[in-house]
Amino acid sequence: MPRPLLDVVSGRGWVQAMLDAEAALARAEAKAGVIPSDAAETIGAACDASRYDVEAIADEGRRVANPAEPLVRRLREVSEWAHHGATTQDIVDTAAMLVTKCARGLVLEEANGVAAVCAKLADEHRGTVMAARTLLQQAVPTTFGLKAAGWLAGVVEARRRLAAVELAAQLGGAAGTLASLGDQGPEVLRLYAEELGLAEPPLPWHANRVRVAELIDALALVGGACGKIALDVILLAQTEVAEVTPPAGGSTAMAHKRNPASAVVAVAAARQLAQRIDLLGEHERAAGAWQAEWPALTNALGYAGGAAAGTRETLDGLEVNVDRMLANISPDLADYPPAGDAFIDRALERYG
Amino acid sequence: MPRPLLDVVSGRGWVQAMLDAEAALARAEAKAGVIPSDAAETIGAACDASRYDVEAIADEGRRVANPAEPLVRRLREVSEWAHHGATTQDIVDTAAMLVTKCARGLVLEEANGVAAVCAKLADEHRGTVMAARTLLQQAVPTTFGLKAAGWLAGVVEARRRLAAVELAAQLGGAAGTLASLGDQGPEVLRLYAEELGLAEPPLPWHANRVRVAELIDALALVGGACGKIALDVILLAQTEVAEVTPPAGGSTAMAHKRNPASAVVAVAAARQLAQRIDLLGEHERAAGAWQAEWPALTNALGYAGGAAAGTRETLDGLEVNVDRMLANISPDLADYPPAGDAFIDRALERYG
Amino acid sequence: MPRPLLDVVSGRGWVQAMLDAEAALARAEAKAGVIPSDAAETIGAACDASRYDVEAIADEGRRVANPAEPLVRRLREVSEWAHHGATTQDIVDTAAMLVTKCARGLVLEEANGVAAVCAKLADEHRGTVMAARTLLQQAVPTTFGLKAAGWLAGVVEARRRLAAVELAAQLGGAAGTLASLGDQGPEVLRLYAEELGLAEPPLPWHANRVRVAELIDALALVGGACGKIALDVILLAQTEVAEVTPPAGGSTAMAHKRNPASAVVAVAAARQLAQRIDLLGEHERAAGAWQAEWPALTNALGYAGGAAAGTRETLDGLEVNVDRMLANISPDLADYPPAGDAFIDRALERYG
Amino acid sequence: MPRPLLDVVSGRGWVQAMLDAEAALARAEAKAGVIPSDAAETIGAACDASRYDVEAIADEGRRVANPAEPLVRRLREVSEWAHHGATTQDIVDTAAMLVTKCARGLVLEEANGVAAVCAKLADEHRGTVMAARTLLQQAVPTTFGLKAAGWLAGVVEARRRLAAVELAAQLGGAAGTLASLGDQGPEVLRLYAEELGLAEPPLPWHANRVRVAELIDALALVGGACGKIALDVILLAQTEVAEVTPPAGGSTAMAHKRNPASAVVAVAAARQLAQRIDLLGEHERAAGAWQAEWPALTNALGYAGGAAAGTRETLDGLEVNVDRMLANISPDLADYPPAGDAFIDRALERYG
Repeated sequence: MPRPLLDVVSGRGWVQAMLDAEAALARAEAKAGVIPSDAAETIGAACDASRYDVEAIADEGRRVANPAEPLVRRLREVSEWAHHGATTQDIVDTAAMLVTKCARGLVLEEANGVAAVCAKLADEHRGTVMAARTLLQQAVPTTFGLKAAGWLAGVVEARRRLAAVELAAQLGGAAGTLASLGDQGPEVLRLYAEELGLAEPPLPWHANRVRVAELIDALALVGGACGKIALDVILLAQTEVAEVTPPAGGSTAMAHKRNPASAVVAVAAARQLAQRIDLLGEHERAAGAWQAEWPALTNALGYAGGAAAGTRETLDGLEVNVDRMLANISPDLADYPPAGDAFIDRALERYG
Repeated sequence: MPRPLLDVVSGRGWVQAMLDAEAALARAEAKAGVIPSDAAETIGAACDASRYDVEAIADEGRRVANPAEPLVRRLREVSEWAHHGATTQDIVDTAAMLVTKCARGLVLEEANGVAAVCAKLADEHRGTVMAARTLLQQAVPTTFGLKAAGWLAGVVEARRRLAAVELAAQLGGAAGTLASLGDQGPEVLRLYAEELGLAEPPLPWHANRVRVAELIDALALVGGACGKIALDVILLAQTEVAEVTPPAGGSTAMAHKRNPASAVVAVAAARQLAQRIDLLGEHERAAGAWQAEWPALTNALGYAGGAAAGTRETLDGLEVNVDRMLANISPDLADYPPAGDAFIDRALERYG
Repeated sequence: MPRPLLDVVSGRGWVQAMLDAEAALARAEAKAGVIPSDAAETIGAACDASRYDVEAIADEGRRVANPAEPLVRRLREVSEWAHHGATTQDIVDTAAMLVTKCARGLVLEEANGVAAVCAKLADEHRGTVMAARTLLQQAVPTTFGLKAAGWLAGVVEARRRLAAVELAAQLGGAAGTLASLGDQGPEVLRLYAEELGLAEPPLPWHANRVRVAELIDALALVGGACGKIALDVILLAQTEVAEVTPPAGGSTAMAHKRNPASAVVAVAAARQLAQRIDLLGEHERAAGAWQAEWPALTNALGYAGGAAAGTRETLDGLEVNVDRMLANISPDLADYPPAGDAFIDRALERYG
Repeated sequence: MPRPLLDVVSGRGWVQAMLDAEAALARAEAKAGVIPSDAAETIGAACDASRYDVEAIADEGRRVANPAEPLVRRLREVSEWAHHGATTQDIVDTAAMLVTKCARGLVLEEANGVAAVCAKLADEHRGTVMAARTLLQQAVPTTFGLKAAGWLAGVVEARRRLAAVELAAQLGGAAGTLASLGDQGPEVLRLYAEELGLAEPPLPWHANRVRVAELIDALALVGGACGKIALDVILLAQTEVAEVTPPAGGSTAMAHKRNPASAVVAVAAARQLAQRIDLLGEHERAAGAWQAEWPALTNALGYAGGAAAGTRETLDGLEVNVDRMLANISPDLADYPPAGDAFIDRALERYG
């Protein structure tokens, strides 16, 4: 995982996101006239992660299966109006969306970087003939440009999916009814979402986790599409194939060895995106499945970003050994026509 | 899995879909002037699953890790123009899309049925007060209408995702270049997709499996959203809770027992949608990951449909015990205001 | 999946296993004097799958989430003593063990076959020097014998694990107390297990699914250990490496192509063994998790067997291209000493 | 995850384990006369994690996809004999075994604690009649003692499996041949394992990951067996059932609420043990699958421990509401005999 992404999804990152949610709630409630304005200011001032011992909060949170509970206790010492009308799930779910908003931006940036190199390679290598391989046997000639166009399609389809998932604020009170705010509930929800730059959901999604599953699925797509590229690079870089030379990490045991380190990082990250979340939660808050979402989301963001960053680094430093590509083609393939490049144009038009 | 869905995703269903792909290919190539028209007719006539021993084809296909290979051999005995310019992956991938097109229709129909009952319950039970339960403890009052509105939101979000996945034809020849059709490749692809009622992809997706992953992810969402409803019903139907009475299956051991059979079917089906496909396939055709997609897609279609059908049957026959809901509310909850129903209106507007 | 294994884990295979359990129960109860001897004979005669419409039974079973229920209904028409004191879970769980007993034998036989060829290759190729590859880069020289010794270790460790899982009869009555048989419960359980050739459990395991999870885990190990061999073969067989030639399946598109079909079958099968079962079932019988075990176990047996059989077929027909192995070694590796073969002896001693 | 366990599996814990492996290697090589004794002492003195910036090492390690590489670089500045004849995989794999050895001890201790309370509950509540529930419907009477005996069986079977997995040292050199140590390889391996208190493997297991898979599988069993208990407790503690009262965490929103926090922690932890590792690694070191093992093992140890600790805390503080158990039994169950307790004796004998 790249360092800035690691920070966003770190314990500290989550704590700050929870505090941002509490501060926005107070501001929204003050605007709606539900709590005094100065209470909102007091609360806002206290919502700074640097004021808290993040490790201690994490430990306390683990004991009650709820990372927001220790924060709420501390904020209530600052103002009785803190967390007014909310439940901890509102804060944790909203924090998850805030962490995601920031981390997704970083993931998309890396994926964009991958796509940009793929598009460049597709265009530059229209005429670079190489063997296409099916079931790891040489099949017929293709071009490295068309191969890169296929990579491009995968990454862009995945990133579009990820970008399309709506991030919505969560505010439902103790069990998703928002009843404790009375008639002002919907207005507070609107202001709260506005403050946070998140979508306003039609109703609280405490018990409907489709949104979170969609996110994690889309992150797995991005990781997988990038991991596929990294795997192809590793295969092309095999000593016996040597059609590309990725940026190399050294070996502690062998001076000659050029390990495709960043590509391996990408594949390893992509391999850790296999698990789905459990949508079968009990009633208005699941006893276990909800709590299991936090590490799942954290990991999915981190590993998707890791796969994208590793792949981008790999492609950014990739040497393409055009002569070797040609030389490797088996004589068996001589009778097959070279690939046309109509598909490259179409790919660049749709995904470029 | 419901019987019509079982048939669509059965071995016979797959064989017919592969034959439909071959017939469409021949027609498209005849229209494009690539093969003689009477060859297309001869091939089309041979593309009827009832003419083949499906079991034998499956056995032969397993041996070569390719279900289309035995069919192609048989069709080539009928006409030398059969399968012209294509590879077996074109046929299998296109068949996967055809099977999905038909099966998805059935899954969506079941999901629509679930959504319709949820919307009806949400509207009818706006005033039916019951305990909301978080971590399986009574929290505050809610209404059964709001609970059903939450179910509705989940199912509709999931079904929209499923409906949105584009089903595209596959035609790329031996390794995705379509080179053997020369300049006519793109035109044949266009006609082929048109014949099949599938989208025309910008380039072959032999090595880009994002589409298939999206489908299976979306099926898992539908199954999960339905399974969540079924689980809630099972919990509400507990002997000690008895707030709903689902349609019952009998017990062989106990005369008094009313098993929530259809809800259990739904949960069991939903629990089988956990596995993702592997996007990290090697080069132009993966050695293992591609072949593992067929049972994965078959299962995902079947189990998503099973979860939706089981949930629909459960809700269709559900008795709501309004008095018991009220009576069950713990005195601890007396001081909390009943839930407003603004969120029900919003949910019906957005998802109804 | 090999055909005999497919039959054992088929719908018919499961139905016969359930009938075998019912027949054994009747015999055990007759021996214990709980039911009349002639009832046991009548029931035994009816316990033949060929007397039933397996498809119809499957359909009926799906509707009540219980494959044994339709059978029990039919047997009770034959004798009122059928299924006496048992619950359907007793029959389904015991059938699962019987299916496993038979299928595991076939899986172990295939795994033994794989191990035997590995041992032979390890011994024969002690002196066959080749490049060891880490991260798919040539590292230092090794021997094909040592490589095969490593394969051997994995397969034998996995098969030992699988062979060690105890298969136990299940008999607990309606909820695992066996109370309806009174004091004779434990004696009937003992006789029942004896009749079936299964272990007698200390107490019913209705709600303790560790045994089933252990089985499926061990099957995944066997599949994985075999799949690893198949993957190595596919990589060694790459056109550019060509150090081994596996038995080949043809291609419909390219005459020159030699697809490593059986190895691909093995990898695809191994890739489908990723999912665990859910041990978190509710109370005395889970509402969903238990029912999800049947396809999980069926698949695990089939795919483990498929991976082992595919790998065995691959190794049985493998040509080892000794000269090419030597020729492929990069000059960079010249300074490294060849591998000693002490480890081969140790491996043959421990695993041979 | 409990704090001591978190420390063991932390970044610092892994770094110290890698240093312990390097120190043991130096000592073993000094004993075998392969490196000078004073070099071993120098190296040993440098093998103290408190001397290093763990964060920096982690960052550097991520960049080369290898956590040992930055350590080896630092140690070689201390002595040219550091890491002699080894490869980084030797150090990482051995460290994994050392981390596991320590963490497994903690997990087993928690599991033993769970088993001890289960055995006590089984014995004390032989006569505590309650409803058995199948598919979450009351079925027939059972006793709380028998229920606890079933929990006991699951936990002990799982813990026995975990305890049985052999932890072996890894030493194979650049690619598992240990060739660089010449004839002394096997002797160094023996001494190295002895120094570390790990088993001596017959041959290096660089490419055979069955051992690691077995460990993670066994950890999932422990987590699952504990999670099942926690789920049952949560279900029994439902407001409407109230047959047990687990130790409670508070709620920030509702004063009356008693959340079964530790049980929820256990279930959430158990739900995160679903993913298997990938046994299909390429050749002598996998490009991705190996690297993905480290977080997988770390998580499995932590979550299995978390599930066991949460369950232990739940059972340690559990109030059993004997009268409520009796009162809850539905009149429908009146005709069924109470459960005998023969099975409790058998369970205590086998698992107590």
